[in-house]
Amino acid sequence: MKQLQEKIIQEGKVLSDQVLKVDTFLNHQIDPPLMQAIGEEFAERFKGSGITKILTIESSGIAPSMMAGLILGVPVIFARKRKSVTMNDNLYTASVHSFTKNVTSDISVSKDFLKNGDVVLVIDDFLANGQAALGLLDILKQSGAELAGVGIVIEKGFQPGGEMLRGKGIRVESLAIVESLENGTVEFREEGVSR
Amino acid sequence: MKQLQEKIIQEGKVLSDQVLKVDTFLNHQIDPPLMQAIGEEFAERFKGSGITKILTIESSGIAPSMMAGLILGVPVIFARKRKSVTMNDNLYTASVHSFTKNVTSDISVSKDFLKNGDVVLVIDDFLANGQAALGLLDILKQSGAELAGVGIVIEKGFQPGGEMLRGKGIRVESLAIVESLENGTVEFREEGVSR
Repeated sequence: MKQLQEKIIQEGKVLSDQVLKVDTFLNHQIDPPLMQAIGEEFAERFKGSGITKILTIESSGIAPSMMAGLILGVPVIFARKRKSVTMNDNLYTASVHSFTKNVTSDISVSKDFLKNGDVVLVIDDFLANGQAALGLLDILKQSGAELAGVGIVIEKGFQPGGEMLRGKGIRVESLAIVESLENGTVEFREEGVSR
Repeated sequence: MKQLQEKIIQEGKVLSDQVLKVDTFLNHQIDPPLMQAIGEEFAERFKGSGITKILTIESSGIAPSMMAGLILGVPVIFARKRKSVTMNDNLYTASVHSFTKNVTSDISVSKDFLKNGDVVLVIDDFLANGQAALGLLDILKQSGAELAGVGIVIEKGFQPGGEMLRGKGIRVESLAIVESLENGTVEFREEGVSR
């Protein structure tokens, strides 16, 4: 997605060979028109998949998911990293390991919102090692809902998550795939090229 | 806002005299067309205030803020409850006490995104004791930015936050004000009536 690639080039900060900071438009400050364009792109790529719900994870997945949900005409559920005061025990729960922080934490979704018969698009802001996506897929499996595919705003193509998910036969649509952050420079994988 | 009141009546669950659960459309599952209507209402109420940024707090404030930002044509910043991997020390920080959970925690906003000269609309999902709003106002004050007002999706009118903020001369626009949750029933304050 050209508009997103250009935004990453203009505003992304390469903090190391592994870490791209995009908090001017996605992870802390949000650029609403870009989120709208991202939502439109996800909706275009997954239209005709019979999607009934979008599942994401708080907090940076919410804005792009909301726009995709608005355009696809379906509700958005965000998995909780912490239980809220009003969440009870009626929950699907999965463990997510963060390699960056080296901690494992639980994510939860109320059983009220995912059912057998739902066709679900999973959306997240970043795909790196794929652990958050695996947690969301675990929750989907528990619910009996069907996975339509995974929509990612920025995939770090030099980390193993994308290959791991595609290796399971899962449709992964990443709007920008960063091939390398070496030498402080963002290199993108050409669109249409998979590995 | 009639549409929001009707949604609360239809889907809100009164868990006690103090707690209203609205996780079918705001706090866990999100209803995108309702968020769009809420964003339009905030934009209508605050148009002409010269707003340059919207400031909210993760996670449930993000969806309504995003839609308001899209319509007002301004970026949205969400204060972080936890520091992210890519956040450094260039932060405004404030303490927020939660009476419900009886814990005090820090929220942070990067100094890059709020400046002297900004005119800021603060948006949050709920207003109860007003502690989250006070934390956001503290951050605004540190930044030198000007406060245009506070937009709230659901105010619990029987808790002191609304009165406390209005008593400071702050413009508070709540799209629904719940007057009482007694006897398991949601009673709204009439629009145009203030206390």
